[in-house]
Amino acid sequence: MNELEFVAGLRTLPLHPAARGLDDDCAVFECGTETLILTHDMMAEGTHFAPEAKMADVAWKLVAMNLSDLASKGADPIGALIGVSLGRDDEGFLSGLRDALVIYDMPLLGGDTIASTGPSTFGITAIGRATHQPVPSRRGAKEGDALYVTGIFGRAMLGFEGHAQHLDAFHRPQPRLAEGRALAPLVSAMMDVSDGLLLDAWRMAQSSKVSFRLKPELIPVADTTRLDECLRWGDDYELLFTAHPALDLPVPVTRIGVVEAESEAPVYLGGTALLEPQSLGYQHG
Amino acid sequence: MNELEFVAGLRTLPLHPAARGLDDDCAVFECGTETLILTHDMMAEGTHFAPEAKMADVAWKLVAMNLSDLASKGADPIGALIGVSLGRDDEGFLSGLRDALVIYDMPLLGGDTIASTGPSTFGITAIGRATHQPVPSRRGAKEGDALYVTGIFGRAMLGFEGHAQHLDAFHRPQPRLAEGRALAPLVSAMMDVSDGLLLDAWRMAQSSKVSFRLKPELIPVADTTRLDECLRWGDDYELLFTAHPALDLPVPVTRIGVVEAESEAPVYLGGTALLEPQSLGYQHG
Repeated sequence: MNELEFVAGLRTLPLHPAARGLDDDCAVFECGTETLILTHDMMAEGTHFAPEAKMADVAWKLVAMNLSDLASKGADPIGALIGVSLGRDDEGFLSGLRDALVIYDMPLLGGDTIASTGPSTFGITAIGRATHQPVPSRRGAKEGDALYVTGIFGRAMLGFEGHAQHLDAFHRPQPRLAEGRALAPLVSAMMDVSDGLLLDAWRMAQSSKVSFRLKPELIPVADTTRLDECLRWGDDYELLFTAHPALDLPVPVTRIGVVEAESEAPVYLGGTALLEPQSLGYQHG
Repeated sequence: MNELEFVAGLRTLPLHPAARGLDDDCAVFECGTETLILTHDMMAEGTHFAPEAKMADVAWKLVAMNLSDLASKGADPIGALIGVSLGRDDEGFLSGLRDALVIYDMPLLGGDTIASTGPSTFGITAIGRATHQPVPSRRGAKEGDALYVTGIFGRAMLGFEGHAQHLDAFHRPQPRLAEGRALAPLVSAMMDVSDGLLLDAWRMAQSSKVSFRLKPELIPVADTTRLDECLRWGDDYELLFTAHPALDLPVPVTRIGVVEAESEAPVYLGGTALLEPQSLGYQHG
């Protein structure tokens, strides 16, 4: 099965109401007077990182990608459980893990380590605390809202290719936790962009049953001569959100388009209707 | 690094107080008026299951081993996040996963699926709710307590070898959730036995700073002619606990020894002092 088929299979299993139908970035779990935000992301050698990658960077990115999911909910990190298959350069892995846990104030809650016989696989379950109710989802975008992003797209791509000023964007991405917390009370929908801006915008529009009209000339990209690639490469870990256009927003963001009533295509890029998700970004499995 | 060295490295990272120093089966997290129990266990092809294993059984066991950790805390399952590397017989995996989630009433909270290039790796983060305070730990065994187990040891070993009446013990182990809940208010220390009875008893005695004196003739084993192996093979997922010897216990258990003041060896098996953990059970990594 490919990933879409498998996730469709998972959706037929017993789901907790907090799972939001497995259609969001995180579970949102009411626990007494608190609302916990839960997410689990994995990375595998050969799929998500090269065999020659520095393990300190792999550990950092594993933490960052999970925290980016928490950021999309406006959550504060509480702690993490980690799953590690031991392999080469475990000291490096511990060092990058320490860097990320310290900087983002996310202590370990537990975990498991295993010996493995093949490429390394890692997983983190990150747990956070919602800072605002209702917790943002992908489903709330409304006609008349404006569409915004944090940051610049294509930086991870250029870092992957070795451009010196973008290396950190690829190897040490910074989850938008502060921005997520500041925006959570103001947004109508929010998600993190990890698989490419166009693909993730397409998904949010579908979840919200609206259409997005993006103005390509407004989208901040790292290389304007490679716009198409910058909008399709993943790994940027920025936030994509919608909000009422009259709102003053408390953090630096860029308005890149508007939300319209649902029409033929979920996303229009300038005059181009993007009808299908294929070729819009990183499709799993 | 081997697993012990890596876990020692993890202990030098920022730890949440709920992590209990990474020295227990689960994290115990106070969340408003609730106490959550959190655990993460992984399985890898080639290490924890054979390439020819039925994936439905692998999925069942993955759930069961995580629930066994919750059982050792007397916890009720709330839900699980799952990490899956897609590979062969994903339909079978989903089918075994459904069986276990339904029977143990643990709905999915979320998860991640990845394409992988090598042997499959799976992880589950199981979350439960404590049913009794204080939540049992490995550290509370006291001189004068009696030492008990649930079930029979060596059944998983015989199932692994193909003995018909023990196949389920190996392929579809049943976590002792009901027993854990019933015992939690009465025990002084409790853990689940997954790496072999002698090794896990050794660990509990060390954590509690006591010595255990086991009477080998009292320990229920599946094949008395292979006592040494039955006491050292893992995968039985029974509970090991200590309690005041005068207590009436509400579930079927077997008294296998007594707790003494700490002396030279953590565990004595009959007249034999077991000074070192080597050769007592399944040592990771």
